Amino acid sequence: MNVELLNTGSELLLGRVLNTHQQWLCRRLADLGYVVGRQVAVPDSARDIQSAVREALDHADLVIATGGLGPTSDDRTRDLIAQLFGKRLQLNQAVLDHIRKRFAARRLPMAKINEVQALVPEGARVLANPNGTAPGLAMKIKPSEGQVTRAPNPKIIGGSQRSPLRTRWLVMLPGPPRELRPMFDHFVVPLLRREFPAAAPFICRTLRASGIPESQVQEKIAAPLDKLVKAGLEIGYCARMGLVDVRLLARGRNGRSTVRAAEAVVRKILGARIYGYDDEEMEAVVVRLLTGRKKTLALAESCTGGNLAHRITNVPGASKVFGGGIVAYSNAAKRKFLGVRAATLARHGAVSAAVAREMAEGAREKFGADFAVGITGIAGPTGGTRTKPVGTVFIALAGAPGTVVERRLNSYGREEFKDLTARQALETLRMRLVRE
Amino acid sequence: MNVELLNTGSELLLGRVLNTHQQWLCRRLADLGYVVGRQVAVPDSARDIQSAVREALDHADLVIATGGLGPTSDDRTRDLIAQLFGKRLQLNQAVLDHIRKRFAARRLPMAKINEVQALVPEGARVLANPNGTAPGLAMKIKPSEGQVTRAPNPKIIGGSQRSPLRTRWLVMLPGPPRELRPMFDHFVVPLLRREFPAAAPFICRTLRASGIPESQVQEKIAAPLDKLVKAGLEIGYCARMGLVDVRLLARGRNGRSTVRAAEAVVRKILGARIYGYDDEEMEAVVVRLLTGRKKTLALAESCTGGNLAHRITNVPGASKVFGGGIVAYSNAAKRKFLGVRAATLARHGAVSAAVAREMAEGAREKFGADFAVGITGIAGPTGGTRTKPVGTVFIALAGAPGTVVERRLNSYGREEFKDLTARQALETLRMRLVRE
Repeated sequence: MNVELLNTGSELLLGRVLNTHQQWLCRRLADLGYVVGRQVAVPDSARDIQSAVREALDHADLVIATGGLGPTSDDRTRDLIAQLFGKRLQLNQAVLDHIRKRFAARRLPMAKINEVQALVPEGARVLANPNGTAPGLAMKIKPSEGQVTRAPNPKIIGGSQRSPLRTRWLVMLPGPPRELRPMFDHFVVPLLRREFPAAAPFICRTLRASGIPESQVQEKIAAPLDKLVKAGLEIGYCARMGLVDVRLLARGRNGRSTVRAAEAVVRKILGARIYGYDDEEMEAVVVRLLTGRKKTLALAESCTGGNLAHRITNVPGASKVFGGGIVAYSNAAKRKFLGVRAATLARHGAVSAAVAREMAEGAREKFGADFAVGITGIAGPTGGTRTKPVGTVFIALAGAPGTVVERRLNSYGREEFKDLTARQALETLRMRLVRE
Repeated sequence: MNVELLNTGSELLLGRVLNTHQQWLCRRLADLGYVVGRQVAVPDSARDIQSAVREALDHADLVIATGGLGPTSDDRTRDLIAQLFGKRLQLNQAVLDHIRKRFAARRLPMAKINEVQALVPEGARVLANPNGTAPGLAMKIKPSEGQVTRAPNPKIIGGSQRSPLRTRWLVMLPGPPRELRPMFDHFVVPLLRREFPAAAPFICRTLRASGIPESQVQEKIAAPLDKLVKAGLEIGYCARMGLVDVRLLARGRNGRSTVRAAEAVVRKILGARIYGYDDEEMEAVVVRLLTGRKKTLALAESCTGGNLAHRITNVPGASKVFGGGIVAYSNAAKRKFLGVRAATLARHGAVSAAVAREMAEGAREKFGADFAVGITGIAGPTGGTRTKPVGTVFIALAGAPGTVVERRLNSYGREEFKDLTARQALETLRMRLVRE
């Protein structure tokens, strides 16, 4: 069972948008036991789309194509697929009614061009779209359809060539994520389960570590996992600014026990370096730890400008442990809302350990929280000095036993600086909570 | 001149990470006048990587491959490429010294496996990596090397087939963005300019509109742009939650004047619906408008939890117009820091127009700002009621002439709700500033 993902859209190749479908669809498919063998993005040109569809159907049993089902002139997938397979486009009255209703419900006039979204290649199944106008389409492609004329020795062209005499499925989904995602869950998942039920069990577990380089992680865990690798375990590493994900993967009947055994080995070696599992973000771990220990948190942010509060409040249930925070960008705000003293600002400057400490302690007192974080630094691109260059940051954590302040130098661009600093603050808080 | 992007990494096909290289590299290349014809992602398997490299070199004059240059066991690009072209790997002493120095500077022990990063396929150029251990590699591929045996009639296989008798370049870049990006700018850009200087001028301008559906945008602008389309203008549309990007693109000598003329047409038709250009985010526009009008802003956020403050502070220079904000998640914080009255909370509930108004007015007064935004709502997934379902939100804007409050229903997931709500608040503020 071979799945290929085809993302259409000139905006992808022009770098105007990020292809979030790649991660979302690949992840969803992997969790269901189907691994995507290749992902391809092509521009909105007839030649590119048609040749990519043909090539994909040549490799894969299931091709999922995204985009190009909208109403505008660059939305050509519907037409091009119909043409490729010699099918006529037929007006689907139910789809047209649905589109009309959506516009009426919003009291918007319906543009004439929206009608093209009700055209369906003959024989295709319509996947209803409760969140937009464009329906998805699913087509069963018979062995004789859409074949590529093969070279005499096709093996030389690509390693993953499959026999072309198969029935394959081509599923077309609309580009907007809030339309694509529910449609995949409601229509594509049942289709997959029905048409390709034999997918082998596939177990994947990611252990997320912090504060240790990728190469050291491998040096520590590779030899102890060697036996399991021989039994079919696959290990992957992925490093991102101070974090390392270790991916443990196994297939087949013993997959679950193999991954479980590997996880136990890695946990024993890396210990508290592991902050979370799978998709778990550090803020979710911190909210979970605070909730479990019945502790509350307050924030006093200067240079991170709300990034940390935003992360914490992304976690459902954060309101149980998080009363709020002050984004104290100006010195006046630091004084007024956090009680930072004018003398401290004058003597040490706004970016100093002393101010970070007073910010954290002020937030802890004013919010009546168990813990508070205070952050002050220079996000850049300007504002650095010789002794405090751009990227300098002080992170204070105030709690019952007192306040600790750490100094870091996060020499990155402004947004990366904010992200990394917020994560360092979370890691400091996490380590404190783990030790509680 | 044909460019193809090849992203290696099983984590991409397993959906464990987002492929940010796609957007960044495609964008950078487009801005330099080179358009990527195809982007492909494959897992870390020898067969997949080698066959993808071969296929890419068959289509393209330049192939940029990312990932697989790290020190761990799944980093195989170096070896596989050397093998594919029959080159030996040679230890590069300068690279090894660089790696050793990096570890020494960080006072970290260097794992033995890091040494593989100093291996270079013979004949390859080393692209120095000041931000990491793995160097990039650039290889000139002679016409006779790495050829795919062709079918008798290659046209049938893919439309973009090129004559294989060309010299091509294969550039390999490390996966971490903070290593890849400067390396691209410092080494790949000069290589491109030297080896492929004839790139035709390529002009792309994106106009970003808000508050109008994609189909209406096209219905309004398509006919007036028809003449320019005949002169070579390409139009693209991209819709994202209430926003529509209109992309105007032209190539060749008259590209600039064609795009300029098209922009004038669209601006005249869409007027103030256009909030920005190219990559401009709405928060950058708002900061620019505030700066130009010498006005200041304060924030009082409940359900957006700092998202809006985080966006505003992403903009360099925000400190000139933004003193700070209160993330008032609890009722206690709303009362204490913003002066929201207990009676208002009791009578109307925390999610109400009256509370949004008092939050905005309280923030405006306490920060001494010209404008303040107050936001209260139900981000979900729980907390909704019959009259105020999940997604209900009140956005208040306080300014000199008084306060306006709008009610919205943003029925999305928690993070999308926060994003959309923050953007609606920015749009409200932008429209007020535009009218000033």
